[in-house]
Amino acid sequence: MELLNKNICFDGEQRIYQTQSQTLKGPTKFAVFIPPQALNGQKCPALYYLAGLTCTEETFIIKAHAQRLAAQLGLILIAPDTSPRGDAVAQGDSWDLGQGAGFYLNATQAPWAEHFQMESYIVEELYPLLIQELPIQAEAIGVFGHSMGGHGALTLAWKYPEKFKSVSAFAPICAPCECPWGEKAFSNYLGQDRIEWAKHDATQLLLTKGPLFDEVLIDQGTDDQFYSQLNPEKYQQACEQVGQKLSLRFQKGYDHGYYFIQSFIDDHLQFHAIQLQK
Amino acid sequence: MELLNKNICFDGEQRIYQTQSQTLKGPTKFAVFIPPQALNGQKCPALYYLAGLTCTEETFIIKAHAQRLAAQLGLILIAPDTSPRGDAVAQGDSWDLGQGAGFYLNATQAPWAEHFQMESYIVEELYPLLIQELPIQAEAIGVFGHSMGGHGALTLAWKYPEKFKSVSAFAPICAPCECPWGEKAFSNYLGQDRIEWAKHDATQLLLTKGPLFDEVLIDQGTDDQFYSQLNPEKYQQACEQVGQKLSLRFQKGYDHGYYFIQSFIDDHLQFHAIQLQK
Repeated sequence: MELLNKNICFDGEQRIYQTQSQTLKGPTKFAVFIPPQALNGQKCPALYYLAGLTCTEETFIIKAHAQRLAAQLGLILIAPDTSPRGDAVAQGDSWDLGQGAGFYLNATQAPWAEHFQMESYIVEELYPLLIQELPIQAEAIGVFGHSMGGHGALTLAWKYPEKFKSVSAFAPICAPCECPWGEKAFSNYLGQDRIEWAKHDATQLLLTKGPLFDEVLIDQGTDDQFYSQLNPEKYQQACEQVGQKLSLRFQKGYDHGYYFIQSFIDDHLQFHAIQLQK
Repeated sequence: MELLNKNICFDGEQRIYQTQSQTLKGPTKFAVFIPPQALNGQKCPALYYLAGLTCTEETFIIKAHAQRLAAQLGLILIAPDTSPRGDAVAQGDSWDLGQGAGFYLNATQAPWAEHFQMESYIVEELYPLLIQELPIQAEAIGVFGHSMGGHGALTLAWKYPEKFKSVSAFAPICAPCECPWGEKAFSNYLGQDRIEWAKHDATQLLLTKGPLFDEVLIDQGTDDQFYSQLNPEKYQQACEQVGQKLSLRFQKGYDHGYYFIQSFIDDHLQFHAIQLQK
């Protein structure tokens, strides 16, 4: 873990690290906010934030405005990049495929499979590394995210409930098997077999595995310009079907961007702080 | 005023406008945060934020994390661009001169004088325009800023105390006549006559005009990478000399960037809210 940047922020530290990832086969960056409690030697709960299409490890730490309350609550915030990067990595034809669009899964198809292993990178490489290197309470780690990263949060939580104790999302892609973003990404990364796709679809995973968390919190703006890609109603219906408690809040007038996220970030941090203390 | 963007944020609106400026002789943008109280028809106090070198009208609204408390306090936030822009405007040789480096004064020297009239643009054009177009309490307008914009806030407040009722700054350039940034900008924009320079130097203005505000709030990081350009001690000394009440807070470990600003933005908003209510 090479420390690239460190800025004092709310008496904590906003850091950016780089590592040579075995899983992604190349360098990758991630951001970590260390609250003052952790600087003072106390082990703290941690929260992974998975960002959306086109974002990097810097998007959340600049635009989501989470540090103030995280410093108060004593939450470590971890924000990985959204894909492998670099000249050696396949670029993709557009902003919704390839670099900046890793979809938090392991690609099986060429040319993606070589580097696009974001699922394994996060849960098998970064997750244990940070428990080892940072003052994290290993039994108190949550995950949340936005859009593609909301899909990432909901799917990783359902795939690895032993690793994540709490989960929430902003405007997540709830049913990627049934929207253009998901269809494009899954057909490229996973091939044409839709049975494989279903293993990476939040709504399908929920229907297959059933309820796994005390509560899931989702905020969704009613004026989201990408609403047709997101399908929150399908996820809500699946939650009702299997008996998963869901707080799906439709926020009137809000769109898909970080002005929406910053408006409700405090609610999500409070939600995780409570779930992680249980 | 052409509305380019509008995002709901904390039940207020984060807007970006463009106007054709007579003063700058070209198009210019500015950001306005309208708190929910103002959306509901209530006139609200307003606060101008002047940004630093290289920044635009977007820097503050993305990085300073001011909207949450401004929405609670009912403060309108106004963030102009830091210079005239465009192909017709002189570029400058570097990031500390020309576009992105207007220094909130009226240039008198070629090639700058044609467009670089940021002082008149803000106080004679934007200021009355926004009182006319937005629900602003005209008698309750404050100004604050960062670095070059801290210089802008302190100098505009001292030049136009009838327009600004409160003033604060983050890491301001307190004595531009005596630092490389100021010497470069002033010699280019104003020529070689240092008597002219003194009219745009916060410390000199304070010594000439004496105390004008109940209190001035300045936050300064002790690990500021540009500390040698800023001279807060000279400003403090001048305040003591003329009897201007100053809260100069040295914030241990903080640097020059927006992680510093976001850590103390709430204190500044609270400070202005109190001053503007007097």
